[in-house]
Amino acid sequence: MSHSTEITFGSREDRGAVETGLVFAPKFDEHGLIVAVAQDEDTNEVLMVAYMNEESLRQTLEIGEAVYYSRSRKQLWHKGATSGHTQVVSKILTDCDQDALVLKVHQHGPGCCHAGYRSCFYRNIQEPGAPVALGQEIADQSYDPNQVYK
Amino acid sequence: MSHSTEITFGSREDRGAVETGLVFAPKFDEHGLIVAVAQDEDTNEVLMVAYMNEESLRQTLEIGEAVYYSRSRKQLWHKGATSGHTQVVSKILTDCDQDALVLKVHQHGPGCCHAGYRSCFYRNIQEPGAPVALGQEIADQSYDPNQVYK
Repeated sequence: MSHSTEITFGSREDRGAVETGLVFAPKFDEHGLIVAVAQDEDTNEVLMVAYMNEESLRQTLEIGEAVYYSRSRKQLWHKGATSGHTQVVSKILTDCDQDALVLKVHQHGPGCCHAGYRSCFYRNIQEPGAPVALGQEIADQSYDPNQVYK
Repeated sequence: MSHSTEITFGSREDRGAVETGLVFAPKFDEHGLIVAVAQDEDTNEVLMVAYMNEESLRQTLEIGEAVYYSRSRKQLWHKGATSGHTQVVSKILTDCDQDALVLKVHQHGPGCCHAGYRSCFYRNIQEPGAPVALGQEIADQSYDPNQVYK
C-alpha cells in the first residue's frame, strides 16, 4: 500500500455517507488524533494501540509502513525507524463512524513493544479486587529491549 | 468474569511498576476515559473500539459483560441492553503503559454494530487518492438494524 499523488480525506458533513459511503472521512479528535489498532495480519493478534494525526496517516498511506503520532514526544513516529521493528501495512479498516482505524500489519523483528514483548498486551486481568491484579498473558519477553533501544 | 467485592485500581506513580508490575493501574485521559478494543475471543476479529470510564470498567468487571461509556450520549452504555447483542467478557488485557484495554468477548446476536454488521470495521481503504476511497470489507449486513433499534 503506497501512493504518490496527493492524499485528501472526505467531508464528514453527511453523517449517512460517513457510515455507509465509500469515501474515507476520518474523524480526528480535538487534539487532531485518531486511534489506530495494529493487528497481526496473519493471527489477528492485537499488537498495539496508538494514535495518528493527519500527516502520519498520509505518510502511512504513502510509504506503506505504520507512522504514528507520539503523544508523549509530540512528533511523528515512524514505528521501527530506530529499532528496525517496522510494521508493513497490508490493509487499513475504518469503523462505522470513522473515528477509529485497524491496521493489518506484518510486524518486522521479534515484537512491537518497547518492553520486549511481541505485543504490548502482555498482561491480563487476573482477579478483580482491591486492587485489581494482573497476570502475565505472554510468558516471556521475545527480545531484550536494552539491546535494541540504547 | 464477575466479582462482588469492592474493585479498586492501583497507583500510577511508579512508571516501572505500571509497565512490568502485576497491579492494574489504568490511565484515564483528561475526560476520564480509556480506550477499549473488543475482540472476538475465537477469531480475534476486532469488533469495535469504544471507551470506558472508571465506573463502566468496574461494572464490566462486576457483571462480566461489556459496559462502555458513550461519549455522544454522555452516559454508561451496557452494550446490548436494548438490542440483546451483549458482549460476554472472558478476558481483559492491558498494554505496557496501561492506557488501552483489549476485551476478549463472546458477541451475542448477529453483530455488534448499529449499522447492521457483525463488526464495526466493515470497510477498508481501497485506494489512496484525492479523496481516499473505501471498499466494502464485509459483503453483507448480518441483520437489519431497523428491526433491532426501533
